Amino acid sequence: MLTFYHSPGSSSMAVHVALHETGAPFESKALSLQAKDTRTPGFLAINPNGRVPTLVIDGRVLTEVAGCLWYLARAYPAANLLPAGDVAAEAEVVSWMSFLASGVHTASRQGPEAVHEAFAVAEKRLAGRAWTVGDRYSISDIHLFRLYWRFKPAHHLPDGKFPAVEDLYARVLARPAVQKTIAAETAAGYALPTSRAP
Amino acid sequence: MLTFYHSPGSSSMAVHVALHETGAPFESKALSLQAKDTRTPGFLAINPNGRVPTLVIDGRVLTEVAGCLWYLARAYPAANLLPAGDVAAEAEVVSWMSFLASGVHTASRQGPEAVHEAFAVAEKRLAGRAWTVGDRYSISDIHLFRLYWRFKPAHHLPDGKFPAVEDLYARVLARPAVQKTIAAETAAGYALPTSRAP
Repeated sequence: MLTFYHSPGSSSMAVHVALHETGAPFESKALSLQAKDTRTPGFLAINPNGRVPTLVIDGRVLTEVAGCLWYLARAYPAANLLPAGDVAAEAEVVSWMSFLASGVHTASRQGPEAVHEAFAVAEKRLAGRAWTVGDRYSISDIHLFRLYWRFKPAHHLPDGKFPAVEDLYARVLARPAVQKTIAAETAAGYALPTSRAP
Repeated sequence: MLTFYHSPGSSSMAVHVALHETGAPFESKALSLQAKDTRTPGFLAINPNGRVPTLVIDGRVLTEVAGCLWYLARAYPAANLLPAGDVAAEAEVVSWMSFLASGVHTASRQGPEAVHEAFAVAEKRLAGRAWTVGDRYSISDIHLFRLYWRFKPAHHLPDGKFPAVEDLYARVLARPAVQKTIAAETAAGYALPTSRAP
Protein backbone atom coordinates (compact mmCIF):
# COMPACT_ATOMS: atom_id res chain seq x y z
CA MET A 1 0.00 0.00 0.00
CA LEU A 2 1.24 3.48 -0.96
CA THR A 3 0.52 6.67 0.95
CA PHE A 4 1.54 9.84 -0.86
CA TYR A 5 2.15 13.01 1.14
CA HIS A 6 2.35 15.96 -1.19
CA SER A 7 1.72 19.65 -1.50
CA PRO A 8 -0.26 20.64 -4.61
CA GLY A 9 1.84 22.65 -7.07
CA SER A 10 5.16 21.84 -5.33
CA SER A 11 7.97 19.47 -6.38
CA SER A 12 5.88 16.52 -5.26
CA MET A 13 3.80 17.06 -8.41
CA ALA A 14 6.39 15.06 -10.41
CA VAL A 15 5.72 12.03 -8.20
CA HIS A 16 1.98 12.59 -8.52
CA VAL A 17 2.35 12.40 -12.32
CA ALA A 18 4.32 9.14 -12.03
CA LEU A 19 1.64 7.67 -9.74
CA HIS A 20 -0.95 8.40 -12.41
CA GLU A 21 1.34 7.08 -15.17
CA THR A 22 1.73 3.75 -13.36
CA GLY A 23 -1.88 3.46 -12.29
CA ALA A 24 -0.65 2.40 -8.83
CA PRO A 25 -3.38 2.60 -6.18
CA PHE A 26 -2.44 5.16 -3.54
CA GLU A 27 -3.87 7.16 -0.70
CA SER A 28 -3.42 10.87 -1.37
CA LYS A 29 -2.59 13.17 1.56
CA ALA A 30 -2.47 16.79 0.40
CA LEU A 31 -0.60 19.09 2.79
CA SER A 32 -0.54 22.87 2.67
CA LEU A 33 2.92 24.43 2.90
CA GLN A 34 1.32 27.80 3.75
CA ALA A 35 -0.58 26.27 6.67
CA LYS A 36 2.71 24.57 7.79
CA ASP A 37 1.09 21.13 7.52
CA THR A 38 4.57 19.64 6.94
CA ARG A 39 5.71 20.92 10.36
CA THR A 40 3.08 19.25 12.53
CA PRO A 41 4.24 16.62 15.07
CA GLY A 42 2.17 14.05 13.17
CA PHE A 43 3.96 14.62 9.87
CA LEU A 44 7.40 15.04 11.48
CA ALA A 45 6.93 11.60 13.04
CA ILE A 46 6.70 10.23 9.48
CA ASN A 47 9.39 12.40 7.89
CA PRO A 48 11.61 14.18 10.46
CA ASN A 49 12.78 16.57 7.75
CA GLY A 50 9.23 17.78 7.13
CA ARG A 51 9.45 17.67 3.37
CA VAL A 52 7.28 16.53 0.49
CA PRO A 53 7.18 14.36 -1.53
CA THR A 54 7.08 11.62 1.07
CA LEU A 55 5.96 8.23 -0.15
CA VAL A 56 5.19 5.55 2.43
CA ILE A 57 5.50 2.04 1.01
CA ASP A 58 4.13 -0.60 3.37
CA GLY A 59 5.47 1.44 6.26
CA ARG A 60 8.85 2.33 4.66
CA VAL A 61 9.39 6.04 4.16
CA LEU A 62 10.87 7.28 0.90
CA THR A 63 11.78 10.91 0.18
CA GLU A 64 13.19 13.13 -2.60
CA VAL A 65 11.60 13.45 -6.04
CA ALA A 66 14.29 11.29 -7.68
CA GLY A 67 13.95 8.50 -5.10
CA CYS A 68 10.15 8.36 -5.34
CA LEU A 69 10.21 8.46 -9.16
CA TRP A 70 12.78 5.66 -9.21
CA TYR A 71 10.67 3.47 -6.94
CA LEU A 72 7.53 3.89 -9.04
CA ALA A 73 9.33 3.23 -12.33
CA ARG A 74 10.95 0.05 -11.00
CA ALA A 75 7.97 -1.25 -9.05
CA TYR A 76 5.60 -0.74 -12.01
CA PRO A 77 7.70 -1.73 -15.05
CA ALA A 78 4.63 -2.00 -17.31
CA ALA A 79 4.44 1.81 -17.33
CA ASN A 80 7.77 1.90 -19.22
CA LEU A 81 9.16 4.84 -17.28
CA LEU A 82 12.79 3.63 -17.43
CA PRO A 83 14.95 2.40 -20.31
CA ALA A 84 14.97 -1.40 -20.02
CA GLY A 85 18.04 -3.57 -20.43
CA ASP A 86 20.51 -0.75 -20.93
CA VAL A 87 22.55 0.00 -17.81
CA ALA A 88 24.21 3.10 -19.32
CA ALA A 89 20.80 4.58 -20.26
CA GLU A 90 19.53 3.84 -16.75
CA ALA A 91 22.58 5.71 -15.39
CA GLU A 92 21.76 8.64 -17.70
CA VAL A 93 18.32 8.87 -16.07
CA VAL A 94 20.00 9.04 -12.64
CA SER A 95 22.45 11.63 -14.01
CA TRP A 96 19.63 13.82 -15.37
CA MET A 97 17.66 13.64 -12.12
CA SER A 98 20.73 14.52 -10.06
CA PHE A 99 21.48 17.46 -12.36
CA LEU A 100 17.83 18.63 -12.18
CA ALA A 101 17.73 18.44 -8.37
CA SER A 102 21.14 19.99 -7.73
CA GLY A 103 21.69 22.22 -10.77
CA VAL A 104 18.20 23.40 -11.73
CA HIS A 105 15.95 23.22 -8.67
CA THR A 106 18.47 24.82 -6.30
CA ALA A 107 19.15 27.61 -8.84
CA SER A 108 15.83 29.21 -7.85
CA ARG A 109 17.38 30.09 -4.47
CA GLN A 110 19.98 32.16 -6.33
CA GLY A 111 17.48 34.10 -8.45
CA PRO A 112 16.25 34.33 -12.05
CA GLU A 113 19.69 34.66 -13.64
CA ALA A 114 20.84 31.36 -12.15
CA VAL A 115 17.58 29.72 -13.29
CA HIS A 116 18.14 30.98 -16.86
CA GLU A 117 21.68 29.57 -16.81
CA ALA A 118 20.45 26.25 -15.46
CA PHE A 119 17.89 25.86 -18.25
CA ALA A 120 20.56 26.85 -20.77
CA VAL A 121 22.58 23.85 -19.52
CA ALA A 122 19.47 21.64 -19.76
CA GLU A 123 18.92 22.85 -23.33
CA LYS A 124 22.55 22.06 -24.18
CA ARG A 125 22.23 18.62 -22.58
CA LEU A 126 19.12 17.88 -24.66
CA ALA A 127 21.01 18.95 -27.80
CA GLY A 128 17.74 19.07 -29.76
CA ARG A 129 16.66 15.55 -28.81
CA ALA A 130 13.00 14.85 -28.03
CA TRP A 131 13.59 13.20 -24.63
CA THR A 132 16.21 13.43 -21.88
CA VAL A 133 17.36 9.82 -22.35
CA GLY A 134 17.15 7.69 -25.49
CA ASP A 135 14.17 7.95 -27.78
CA ARG A 136 11.30 7.75 -25.35
CA TYR A 137 9.61 9.22 -22.28
CA SER A 138 11.04 8.37 -18.84
CA ILE A 139 10.98 9.64 -15.24
CA SER A 140 13.70 12.21 -15.94
CA ASP A 141 11.34 13.84 -18.48
CA ILE A 142 8.68 14.11 -15.77
CA HIS A 143 11.24 15.75 -13.47
CA LEU A 144 12.33 18.28 -16.13
CA PHE A 145 8.70 18.95 -17.09
CA ARG A 146 7.66 19.84 -13.54
CA LEU A 147 10.61 22.24 -13.01
CA TYR A 148 9.90 24.07 -16.26
CA TRP A 149 6.15 24.15 -15.50
CA ARG A 150 6.91 25.94 -12.25
CA PHE A 151 9.93 28.06 -13.13
CA LYS A 152 8.88 29.37 -16.57
CA PRO A 153 6.18 31.64 -15.10
CA ALA A 154 7.94 32.14 -11.75
CA HIS A 155 11.21 33.33 -13.30
CA HIS A 156 9.82 34.79 -16.53
CA LEU A 157 11.64 32.43 -18.88
CA PRO A 158 10.89 33.84 -22.33
CA ASP A 159 9.17 31.83 -25.09
CA GLY A 160 11.58 30.49 -27.67
CA LYS A 161 14.68 30.69 -25.51
CA PHE A 162 14.92 26.96 -24.68
CA PRO A 163 13.25 25.31 -27.69
CA ALA A 164 14.10 21.67 -26.92
CA VAL A 165 12.99 22.07 -23.28
CA GLU A 166 9.76 23.79 -24.38
CA ASP A 167 9.00 21.14 -26.95
CA LEU A 168 9.51 18.34 -24.40
CA TYR A 169 7.42 20.30 -21.88
CA ALA A 170 4.50 20.62 -24.31
CA ARG A 171 4.51 16.89 -25.11
CA VAL A 172 4.58 15.92 -21.43
CA LEU A 173 1.87 18.47 -20.57
CA ALA A 174 -0.45 16.82 -23.11
CA ARG A 175 -0.21 13.39 -21.45
CA PRO A 176 -3.40 12.13 -19.76
CA ALA A 177 -1.50 11.37 -16.51
CA VAL A 178 -0.31 14.99 -16.35
CA GLN A 179 -3.76 16.42 -17.06
CA LYS A 180 -5.20 14.14 -14.40
CA THR A 181 -2.54 15.33 -11.92
CA ILE A 182 -3.21 19.00 -12.64
CA ALA A 183 -6.95 18.45 -12.22
CA ALA A 184 -6.42 16.63 -8.91
CA GLU A 185 -4.01 19.25 -7.55
CA THR A 186 -6.27 22.10 -8.66
CA ALA A 187 -9.19 20.42 -6.89
CA ALA A 188 -7.04 20.01 -3.74
CA GLY A 189 -6.33 23.72 -4.06
CA TYR A 190 -3.15 25.48 -5.08
CA ALA A 191 -2.17 28.75 -6.67
CA LEU A 192 -1.47 28.28 -10.37
CA PRO A 193 2.16 29.19 -11.14
CA THR A 194 2.45 32.93 -11.43
CA SER A 195 5.22 34.94 -9.88
CA ARG A 196 6.69 32.83 -7.08
CA ALA A 197 8.41 29.49 -6.91
CA PRO A 198 8.24 27.31 -3.79
CA MET B 1 36.34 0.58 -22.43
CA LEU B 2 36.05 3.29 -19.73
CA THR B 3 37.79 6.65 -19.81
CA PHE B 4 37.58 8.60 -16.58
CA TYR B 5 38.05 12.37 -16.64
CA HIS B 6 38.49 13.67 -13.14
CA SER B 7 40.12 16.33 -11.06
CA PRO B 8 42.03 15.00 -8.05
CA GLY B 9 40.43 16.03 -4.76
CA SER B 10 37.14 17.16 -6.40
CA SER B 11 33.71 15.49 -6.46
CA SER B 12 34.96 13.06 -9.08
CA MET B 13 36.86 11.32 -6.26
CA ALA B 14 33.65 9.42 -5.37
CA VAL B 15 33.61 7.88 -8.84
CA HIS B 16 37.33 7.11 -8.57
CA VAL B 17 36.62 5.14 -5.38
CA ALA B 18 33.84 3.19 -7.13
CA LEU B 19 36.16 2.39 -10.03
CA HIS B 20 38.63 0.90 -7.57
CA GLU B 21 35.86 -0.93 -5.69
CA THR B 22 34.68 -2.61 -8.91
CA GLY B 23 38.14 -3.34 -10.26
CA ALA B 24 36.93 -2.10 -13.66
CA PRO B 25 39.81 -1.37 -16.05
CA PHE B 26 39.83 2.32 -16.96
CA GLU B 27 41.99 4.98 -18.50
CA SER B 28 42.57 7.80 -16.00
CA LYS B 29 42.66 11.38 -17.30
CA ALA B 30 43.48 13.78 -14.47
CA LEU B 31 42.53 17.39 -15.21
CA SER B 32 43.53 20.43 -13.20
CA LEU B 33 40.68 22.79 -12.33
CA GLN B 34 43.24 25.50 -11.47
CA ALA B 35 44.83 25.21 -14.93
CA LYS B 36 41.31 25.32 -16.48
CA ASP B 37 41.85 21.92 -18.12
CA THR B 38 38.07 21.39 -18.10
CA ARG B 39 37.60 24.49 -20.30
CA THR B 40 39.81 23.47 -23.23
CA PRO B 41 38.16 22.95 -26.65
CA GLY B 42 39.26 19.30 -26.48
CA PHE B 43 37.45 18.60 -23.22
CA LEU B 44 34.41 20.73 -24.10
CA ALA B 45 34.01 18.58 -27.22
CA ILE B 46 33.57 15.60 -24.88
CA ASN B 47 31.48 17.33 -22.19
CA PRO B 48 30.06 20.71 -23.32
CA ASN B 49 29.41 21.63 -19.69
CA GLY B 50 33.10 21.30 -18.85
CA ARG B 51 32.55 19.36 -15.64
CA VAL B 52 34.08 16.38 -13.90
CA PRO B 53 33.40 13.57 -13.28
CA THR B 54 32.93 12.60 -16.91
CA LEU B 55 32.95 8.91 -17.67
CA VAL B 56 33.14 7.80 -21.29
CA ILE B 57 31.72 4.30 -21.81
CA ASP B 58 32.47 2.95 -25.27
CA GLY B 59 32.00 6.47 -26.64
CA ARG B 60 28.91 7.34 -24.54
CA VAL B 61 29.40 10.26 -22.21
CA LEU B 62 28.07 10.04 -18.65
CA THR B 63 28.17 12.90 -16.14
CA GLU B 64 27.24 13.71 -12.53
CA VAL B 65 28.57 11.78 -9.53
CA ALA B 66 25.25 9.96 -9.01
CA GLY B 67 24.99 8.90 -12.68
CA CYS B 68 28.58 7.57 -12.82
CA LEU B 69 28.24 5.75 -9.47
CA TRP B 70 24.99 4.17 -10.64
CA TYR B 71 26.56 2.93 -13.86
CA LEU B 72 29.52 1.33 -12.09
CA ALA B 73 27.34 -0.35 -9.45
CA ARG B 74 24.99 -1.82 -12.08
CA ALA B 75 27.63 -2.75 -14.65
CA TYR B 76 29.81 -4.50 -12.03
CA PRO B 77 27.30 -6.24 -9.76
CA ALA B 78 29.98 -8.48 -8.21
CA ALA B 79 31.23 -5.43 -6.28
CA ASN B 80 27.91 -5.38 -4.34
CA LEU B 81 27.57 -1.60 -4.40
CA LEU B 82 23.76 -1.64 -4.60
CA PRO B 83 21.12 -3.50 -2.59
CA ALA B 84 20.05 -6.43 -4.75
CA GLY B 85 16.47 -7.56 -5.26
CA ASP B 86 14.86 -4.80 -3.19
CA VAL B 87 13.37 -2.04 -5.34
CA ALA B 88 12.54 0.19 -2.35
CA ALA B 89 16.14 -0.04 -1.06
CA GLU B 90 17.42 0.78 -4.56
CA ALA B 91 15.15 3.85 -4.55
CA GLU B 92 16.57 4.83 -1.14
CA VAL B 93 20.06 4.87 -2.70
CA VAL B 94 18.77 7.22 -5.43
CA SER B 95 17.06 9.33 -2.75
CA TRP B 96 20.26 9.64 -0.69
CA MET B 97 22.35 10.57 -3.73
CA SER B 98 19.83 13.20 -4.82
CA PHE B 99 19.77 14.65 -1.30
CA LEU B 100 23.59 14.66 -1.14
CA ALA B 101 23.95 16.41 -4.53
CA SER B 102 21.17 18.96 -4.03
CA GLY B 103 21.03 19.40 -0.25
CA VAL B 104 24.62 18.90 0.91
CA HIS B 105 26.97 19.65 -1.99
CA THR B 106 25.20 22.87 -3.03
CA ALA B 107 25.13 24.06 0.63
CA SER B 108 28.82 24.93 0.33
CA ARG B 109 27.85 27.78 -2.01
CA GLN B 110 25.80 29.27 0.82
CA GLY B 111 28.57 29.06 3.42
CA PRO B 112 29.53 27.11 6.55
CA GLU B 113 26.21 27.54 8.35
CA ALA B 114 24.29 25.91 5.48
CA VAL B 115 26.85 23.08 5.41
CA HIS B 116 26.39 22.47 9.13
CA GLU B 117 22.62 22.35 8.66
CA ALA B 118 22.95 19.96 5.71
CA PHE B 119 25.09 17.52 7.72
CA ALA B 120 22.61 17.81 10.60
CA VAL B 121 19.94 16.56 8.17
CA ALA B 122 22.27 13.76 7.01
CA GLU B 123 22.86 12.78 10.65
CA LYS B 124 19.09 12.75 11.26
CA ARG B 125 18.55 10.65 8.13
CA LEU B 126 21.16 8.12 9.29
CA ALA B 127 19.40 7.94 12.69
CA GLY B 128 22.40 6.13 14.18
CA ARG B 129 22.50 3.43 11.49
CA ALA B 130 25.86 2.21 10.20
CA TRP B 131 25.11 2.75 6.49
CA THR B 132 22.90 5.07 4.44
CA VAL B 133 20.74 2.20 3.11
CA GLY B 134 20.07 -1.17 4.71
CA ASP B 135 22.82 -2.96 6.57
CA ARG B 136 25.71 -2.69 4.16
CA TYR B 137 27.98 -0.44 2.12
CA SER B 138 26.65 1.02 -1.15
CA ILE B 139 27.36 3.84 -3.59
CA SER B 140 25.42 6.37 -1.48
CA ASP B 141 27.93 5.75 1.34
CA ILE B 142 30.77 6.57 -1.05
CA HIS B 143 28.98 9.81 -2.01
CA LEU B 144 28.44 10.83 1.65
CA PHE B 145 32.04 9.86 2.52
CA ARG B 146 33.52 12.10 -0.16
CA LEU B 147 31.43 15.15 0.83
CA TYR B 148 32.38 14.80 4.50
CA TRP B 149 36.04 14.20 3.59
CA ARG B 150 36.06 17.52 1.76
CA PHE B 151 33.70 19.65 3.84
CA LYS B 152 34.80 18.68 7.36
CA PRO B 153 38.13 20.51 7.04
CA ALA B 154 36.85 23.11 4.54
CA HIS B 155 33.94 24.22 6.73
CA HIS B 156 35.43 23.38 10.15
CA LEU B 157 32.84 20.78 11.10
CA PRO B 158 33.68 19.96 14.73
CA ASP B 159 34.54 16.46 15.95
CA GLY B 160 31.65 14.73 17.68
CA LYS B 161 28.91 16.88 16.16
CA PHE B 162 27.73 14.32 13.59
CA PRO B 163 28.61 10.98 15.21
CA ALA B 164 26.82 8.65 12.76
CA VAL B 165 28.29 10.50 9.75
CA GLU B 166 31.79 10.42 11.32
CA ASP B 167 31.55 6.75 12.12
CA LEU B 168 30.48 5.91 8.56
CA TYR B 169 33.24 8.19 7.22
CA ALA B 170 35.92 6.38 9.26
CA ARG B 171 34.78 2.95 8.04
CA VAL B 172 34.74 4.05 4.40
CA LEU B 173 38.12 5.78 4.75
CA ALA B 174 39.67 2.50 5.90
CA ARG B 175 38.60 0.61 2.77
CA PRO B 176 41.44 -0.46 0.44
CA ALA B 177 39.67 1.10 -2.59
CA VAL B 178 39.57 4.46 -0.80
CA GLN B 179 43.22 4.29 0.27
CA LYS B 180 44.16 3.38 -3.31
CA THR B 181 42.16 6.35 -4.62
CA ILE B 182 43.76 8.80 -2.18
CA ALA B 183 47.22 7.49 -3.12
CA ALA B 184 46.45 7.84 -6.86
CA GLU B 185 45.01 11.34 -6.50
CA THR B 186 47.88 12.46 -4.27
CA ALA B 187 50.34 11.17 -6.88
CA ALA B 188 48.41 13.04 -9.61
CA GLY B 189 48.74 16.11 -7.41
CA TYR B 190 46.09 17.94 -5.45
CA ALA B 191 45.92 20.13 -2.40
CA LEU B 192 44.87 18.11 0.64
CA PRO B 193 41.63 19.45 2.12
CA THR B 194 42.38 22.45 4.27
CA SER B 195 40.37 25.62 4.24
CA ARG B 196 38.55 25.74 0.90
CA ALA B 197 36.03 23.55 -0.86
CA PRO B 198 35.88 23.29 -4.64
